[in-house]
Amino acid sequence: MPTKSRCRSLWRIAASFSFAACLLAQPPGEAARAWRVKNEKAIVAEFLDFLAIPNVARDIERPFIARNADWIVAAFAKRGIQARKLTVDKAPPVIFAEWKTPGATETIMFYVHYDGQPVDPSKWTVTEPFTPKVVGDRIYARSASDDKAPIIALLAAIDAGVKPKANIKFFFEGEEEAGSARVGEIIRKCKPLLDADVWLFCDGPVHQSRRQLIAFGARGSIGFDLTIYGPNRELHSGHYGNWAPNPAQMLMTLVASMRNDDGLTLIDGFGDGAMPLSALEKQAVADAPDIGAELMRELSLGRTLGDGEKIEMLVNRPLLNLRGVSSRAVGRAARNIVPSTATASFDIRLVKGLDGRVALERVIKHVRGRGYHVVDKDPDAATLRAHPKVAKISSAEGGYNAVRASMDLPISKKVIDAVESVRGPAVKVPTMGGSLPMAVFEELLQRPLIIVPIANHDNNQHSHDENIRIQNLWDGIETMAALLAM
Amino acid sequence: MPTKSRCRSLWRIAASFSFAACLLAQPPGEAARAWRVKNEKAIVAEFLDFLAIPNVARDIERPFIARNADWIVAAFAKRGIQARKLTVDKAPPVIFAEWKTPGATETIMFYVHYDGQPVDPSKWTVTEPFTPKVVGDRIYARSASDDKAPIIALLAAIDAGVKPKANIKFFFEGEEEAGSARVGEIIRKCKPLLDADVWLFCDGPVHQSRRQLIAFGARGSIGFDLTIYGPNRELHSGHYGNWAPNPAQMLMTLVASMRNDDGLTLIDGFGDGAMPLSALEKQAVADAPDIGAELMRELSLGRTLGDGEKIEMLVNRPLLNLRGVSSRAVGRAARNIVPSTATASFDIRLVKGLDGRVALERVIKHVRGRGYHVVDKDPDAATLRAHPKVAKISSAEGGYNAVRASMDLPISKKVIDAVESVRGPAVKVPTMGGSLPMAVFEELLQRPLIIVPIANHDNNQHSHDENIRIQNLWDGIETMAALLAM
Repeated sequence: MPTKSRCRSLWRIAASFSFAACLLAQPPGEAARAWRVKNEKAIVAEFLDFLAIPNVARDIERPFIARNADWIVAAFAKRGIQARKLTVDKAPPVIFAEWKTPGATETIMFYVHYDGQPVDPSKWTVTEPFTPKVVGDRIYARSASDDKAPIIALLAAIDAGVKPKANIKFFFEGEEEAGSARVGEIIRKCKPLLDADVWLFCDGPVHQSRRQLIAFGARGSIGFDLTIYGPNRELHSGHYGNWAPNPAQMLMTLVASMRNDDGLTLIDGFGDGAMPLSALEKQAVADAPDIGAELMRELSLGRTLGDGEKIEMLVNRPLLNLRGVSSRAVGRAARNIVPSTATASFDIRLVKGLDGRVALERVIKHVRGRGYHVVDKDPDAATLRAHPKVAKISSAEGGYNAVRASMDLPISKKVIDAVESVRGPAVKVPTMGGSLPMAVFEELLQRPLIIVPIANHDNNQHSHDENIRIQNLWDGIETMAALLAM
Repeated sequence: MPTKSRCRSLWRIAASFSFAACLLAQPPGEAARAWRVKNEKAIVAEFLDFLAIPNVARDIERPFIARNADWIVAAFAKRGIQARKLTVDKAPPVIFAEWKTPGATETIMFYVHYDGQPVDPSKWTVTEPFTPKVVGDRIYARSASDDKAPIIALLAAIDAGVKPKANIKFFFEGEEEAGSARVGEIIRKCKPLLDADVWLFCDGPVHQSRRQLIAFGARGSIGFDLTIYGPNRELHSGHYGNWAPNPAQMLMTLVASMRNDDGLTLIDGFGDGAMPLSALEKQAVADAPDIGAELMRELSLGRTLGDGEKIEMLVNRPLLNLRGVSSRAVGRAARNIVPSTATASFDIRLVKGLDGRVALERVIKHVRGRGYHVVDKDPDAATLRAHPKVAKISSAEGGYNAVRASMDLPISKKVIDAVESVRGPAVKVPTMGGSLPMAVFEELLQRPLIIVPIANHDNNQHSHDENIRIQNLWDGIETMAALLAM
């Protein structure tokens, strides 16, 4: 596929003259590989074009999300597939497409999201977030791995001439990184379109050993900020520091009471309800390679949390994660003051059986138990004067719960077989560490949801210098070809 | 003094024809008031001109500090007083001036500093830090109160025709807000010039009741940053949050172990050596008005630290103040990651008898006692891998110790009498809350140091929207006139 117009031509040839049939004498993975080897430059060129469109999910009022959506519709059109936008008010559109196979009895749905996490360009060292750049064995840009790569892999697998046995559907979401607040509305509105025997969620990284990963569930997530109030203006610490409560110091004491240095959550009953793993699920975790020691070296860590248990086991436990803290300034900008406020930002990682709102209520109850009057909006002067300690807990994000499908359904086995036919023995885990907005899909669609990611684990997703290892993209094309043809 | 040239003319008339002598039939405070009432516009105009020169102490490489110094030399020259710059390598100059009185047996030194705290213009709401503005009853700008106001008050008192009985010296420092690291060098180099019977430190705010304050000591101060290390890059919290140590969470636990919610320092022996107050000093504190309740209302506080003791008593105790915290981001910029580092910034407020380096060593010992390997520079990968917990403690600032002079020296009584002659009964405290670089003066000069501030307590010094209440400037002119004439 040296140029886009030639890609279009190729597709037409394949469609009209069954040119692809000769490729499909090979297994779909091998055919995809052979095709990819000849068309690497064009695949990367198309990917860079896509990555250059900013896609921060919260920028819905700006034209970028719409440009991403249009790009995807056009990319499908080039392959002879008519895509459409599923919309509800003020939400980024879902791009939906259907690729029918005459006589097929099964339907396979591919889920990907095309939006990305917010960016802080000042932290990026390799390139700007939306100026994609190939450096060494990787492509750097926001969403290079999370989650535009599977879109490119699917498009390339189609270009490679894969021939599905089932009906294929595509559901590319546009607000996953903003909490998928309105995806439920879209599903409700378009439910008949969205039925499928299995939903394949193509998101997240493969195993740290670089072996292919299949995950039968994902954690949920809910974020919140906790703000503590001191004097209504900053005070000179020399004059007032022994007298005025210091909200930063109070925040330290409060957060220290919520989780300890060993990573254990200290909030009463925080994880109650979390569903334990079955014997089969425990065995799958036991079979997964242990990459702890190598990761410790790579990350310059002198210790880990969780008593030496595998990461694949630990992600089945709830987590209260402190993702950021801010009060006034440190370093050269520091001044000798008592701060007026201090804020900690958290994400709670949910597991099957632990509801996000329930977990958040347990946090609020804990903060109340530490003597705080808890509000959800900025307190007025009367409120501050009336209570010795005031905390604001605000959760702007919608969040979503965790899901977990059974590993031994026939469709689960079919997915495992297809993936392992191209990628060899896969690491199969009950729960992926990353959160996906899957709970609403499970609840509304009542279908098994299985995660087949393609990105490298060391992709810096959600952070600066996000990247995809190009070999992971090549492998992903083969994986997608096998799944399209299963 | 409607214009600067007329100011110069007035001064010449006064000097040549003893025009001022007729004013000095009145007590010096009354004469200064009468003169001020007629010249308010010109005094404010000169002040605004001075405040418009940026004066951040750390900007020594930029020309602003030098422009401030030149401004002061020129201002003295206009009054017929020849000032000079006392310099050592790379330090902002001290402006020194001498105003001799024939036959005088005593020498009085006036200390002021002309540099200011760093500024964050984005936080200023009334004006830019170096675009001084008169709003209501105040003048807003960086250093409007801390500490350019006493310079203007002294210049105005001179213009008002005050006639000293003693020899007068002026020592205007330029790096107080950067820790006065090199003022000791300057004192050593110029020691014979600097001898005086008393040093009057004109810095800081008057009492919160707006009564004049005389302080016989000041706290010392030393700042430091504490950084905790996690993984060498940010990690996706969903995948790694249960496994990778979270440096922000560790910082919370560590800082919570250093001070509690009631403001008590929990570090073993932290305040050992602090000199207790004498009976006279305790009585002076007991006589000071109690403004706690009013301040609580003004600051929207629902509680205070220190078991209800007066602020004037509490400032005689050491303080470990958390002045800022930073790890990644909160609010809309928050991302679901395990941060790589987390930093807390502190200032230790020292009292007579507690040395800054000793206090800092106690902090370091405490951090070690919590299982940390403590370094003073960024640790390399080998160091991080070799230790379960690594903390960096760095103290860029020089800092200085506290001082306290006896209240019942004859010179102390003379200062009290002079001040109370114009300002009525003063609040007299053993220790001012704010820190001044006085230890080096005490150590090198062995002379009593007494603090006579003029700024309003609610001046936002060290923060945004710093201001001086204009009435405090007017009162300050009378106070300076009385001290110049004592």
